[in-house]
Amino acid sequence: MFSSLDHSMMLHALQLAKRGRFTTAPNPNVGCVIAQGDHIVGQGYHYQAGQPHAEVFALREAGERAKGATAYVTLEPCSHYGRTPPCAEALVKANVTRVVCAMVDPNPKVAGRGIAMLEAAGIEVQTGLLEADAKALNRGFIKRMKTGLPFVQLKLAASLDGRTALANGESKWITSPQARADVQAYRAQSGAILSTSATVLADDPSLNVRWSELSADIQADYPQSDSPQDNLRQPTRIIIDSQNRVSPTCRLAQLPGQTLLARHQCDQLTWPESVSQIMVPSTDVEITDTTSTNAAQLDLKALMQQLVRDHDINHIWVEAGAGLAGALINAKLVDELILYQAPKLMGSDSRGLVDLLGLTSMSHVPTLTISDVRTVGPDIRITASVSGQV
Amino acid sequence: MFSSLDHSMMLHALQLAKRGRFTTAPNPNVGCVIAQGDHIVGQGYHYQAGQPHAEVFALREAGERAKGATAYVTLEPCSHYGRTPPCAEALVKANVTRVVCAMVDPNPKVAGRGIAMLEAAGIEVQTGLLEADAKALNRGFIKRMKTGLPFVQLKLAASLDGRTALANGESKWITSPQARADVQAYRAQSGAILSTSATVLADDPSLNVRWSELSADIQADYPQSDSPQDNLRQPTRIIIDSQNRVSPTCRLAQLPGQTLLARHQCDQLTWPESVSQIMVPSTDVEITDTTSTNAAQLDLKALMQQLVRDHDINHIWVEAGAGLAGALINAKLVDELILYQAPKLMGSDSRGLVDLLGLTSMSHVPTLTISDVRTVGPDIRITASVSGQV
Repeated sequence: MFSSLDHSMMLHALQLAKRGRFTTAPNPNVGCVIAQGDHIVGQGYHYQAGQPHAEVFALREAGERAKGATAYVTLEPCSHYGRTPPCAEALVKANVTRVVCAMVDPNPKVAGRGIAMLEAAGIEVQTGLLEADAKALNRGFIKRMKTGLPFVQLKLAASLDGRTALANGESKWITSPQARADVQAYRAQSGAILSTSATVLADDPSLNVRWSELSADIQADYPQSDSPQDNLRQPTRIIIDSQNRVSPTCRLAQLPGQTLLARHQCDQLTWPESVSQIMVPSTDVEITDTTSTNAAQLDLKALMQQLVRDHDINHIWVEAGAGLAGALINAKLVDELILYQAPKLMGSDSRGLVDLLGLTSMSHVPTLTISDVRTVGPDIRITASVSGQV
Repeated sequence: MFSSLDHSMMLHALQLAKRGRFTTAPNPNVGCVIAQGDHIVGQGYHYQAGQPHAEVFALREAGERAKGATAYVTLEPCSHYGRTPPCAEALVKANVTRVVCAMVDPNPKVAGRGIAMLEAAGIEVQTGLLEADAKALNRGFIKRMKTGLPFVQLKLAASLDGRTALANGESKWITSPQARADVQAYRAQSGAILSTSATVLADDPSLNVRWSELSADIQADYPQSDSPQDNLRQPTRIIIDSQNRVSPTCRLAQLPGQTLLARHQCDQLTWPESVSQIMVPSTDVEITDTTSTNAAQLDLKALMQQLVRDHDINHIWVEAGAGLAGALINAKLVDELILYQAPKLMGSDSRGLVDLLGLTSMSHVPTLTISDVRTVGPDIRITASVSGQV
């Protein structure tokens, strides 16, 4: 059904799509190649919401040469009038004769309508080429469209024996600078970074992406200009703060990028314009964050739904303590675990990694599937997907 | 100094040497290739203590063709009359003209004397080709010869968050059958398996090598015969039992292979002939094995020295609980950690991996170096060397 030429063209389109991964949120990553046989006449990728779609760039470059060509698109061309006119219409107008899509758009506003529009115009359409690769590029977008929940990556860091701090609380420099640089790349790909007031009060973290800490490879994937760092997109910071403990003097409230404080009720303090307070209902489930005094807790699933619905957040990167980590796992809201392990042993009286209190049988233990293991500097990075999630 | 031909011949000799790794203990693994230019005229490896050395097999195969040839040996040929006559003498008699050794023999009975014997006979001798590879084959033999202590591999198995059992003690099937088969291969390469009475009382383990659980690849490396399983060598089982809690009814006392009970004093029970009681002095250092009631503890360093001196044990594989693991690490007796991690999360109230009580500063935390990470079935296996050890 697909030739090896089709494969190599789609691979190229996927590589183009991937270049948008730091800047397209909340839109999906999409790449497009227009080819006359084995000759590429136009290519493009979506690099920012509000900017043209991949197909538009590719068609512009192809011009008249799009006529009779095959368009390879990593995601079904859109069929609706949004911030840009529908790409399916543009492909029809350009007189391409064949369109190959890696996957159907999970967006209910599209979901096959783009393909139908092309077919109605007599264009041959094929889908499913390198579909798994295309899906891997847009896990957040797909999960949001299909479930109304974001794709959640939980970052944890510990010693080989699963400890995050000594009994006295000391924890500085468990993982290496290389692991911390790796975290910067994950943050940069995320729509939001989720943490807790306990972490903010304990560490006063920045929870941002720092251009100087991104590798040259990654810097090169940002839209290029005289100062590509101006295209740095800061993920939204979401701080769970049910007791209104975070104050406007904290570091992250002063930094570029939006911050959402997830609370039960607003305070009346004066906050920078970048900080919003969002109201989230309570839950009966107890979060036992060892560094927190929070008793009343937020309904994490409701928070996630709210972040998708009201804030267009597809993909959340969690950096927090054992309490929130355990609560998210218990609530089955984690899709992927990213665990950094430093080659150290901290001993059984040091602080644990995940609070999952009350397990009494191995058959109830959360079981994951390892998808990647590698060294990052002197440390190990383990990627594991949580069974039963997307 | 060494040609690419030399490299490929020595690589071949190393591969031969490696075939002895399940059977040569307490002798080192040695391989030998005798070549006329690029033509191999004889080859062999040492496969069992008391049997001929690698050079003898290779010279037998080469016969007259050894004259004028180059001998590639992974370890300096021996110079002393032991259970066999010195190999250096045999090489001289066979009229080889050149000998290439991967490494000098760390055995003080040899230590350059083999090379001197060859050179005195006018043979050209070169050493150091693929030396690191040769050393990796005989870590136990080298450490014993250089320090009087065995090479110690500590095996641990836990969940991703470093837990070995739930709070109620349940721990069955944390790691996979593939990980347990991998453990069989490590046991088979070891001179001894070290554990504790706590483990024996809790699990009544066999702590043996089971032919049927070795992979076909490994079975093929045993000396071949009609029933190669007859060549299965059982590592000596060493059980730390300072309070004489182990009784003759335990499973491992009934199985083929020697068992040593490391105790403060003998009991007067009737034990199978395969079980010996060895006396080890006490130490002031406390071992807190969570499943043990032992108070008076053994001097682990004295035990290790005794195992080398009196029992020819080069290489120890440790399978025990958090108490002994921590005590061995505190005593700086561990050379390498082999950590299996199952892709599970067991929570902060589950049992810890290593008891290293009382760490108050990250600067005192034992730090290792990752040498290998890979998946084993659904699990991860991490190999880490302990800094400051050999």
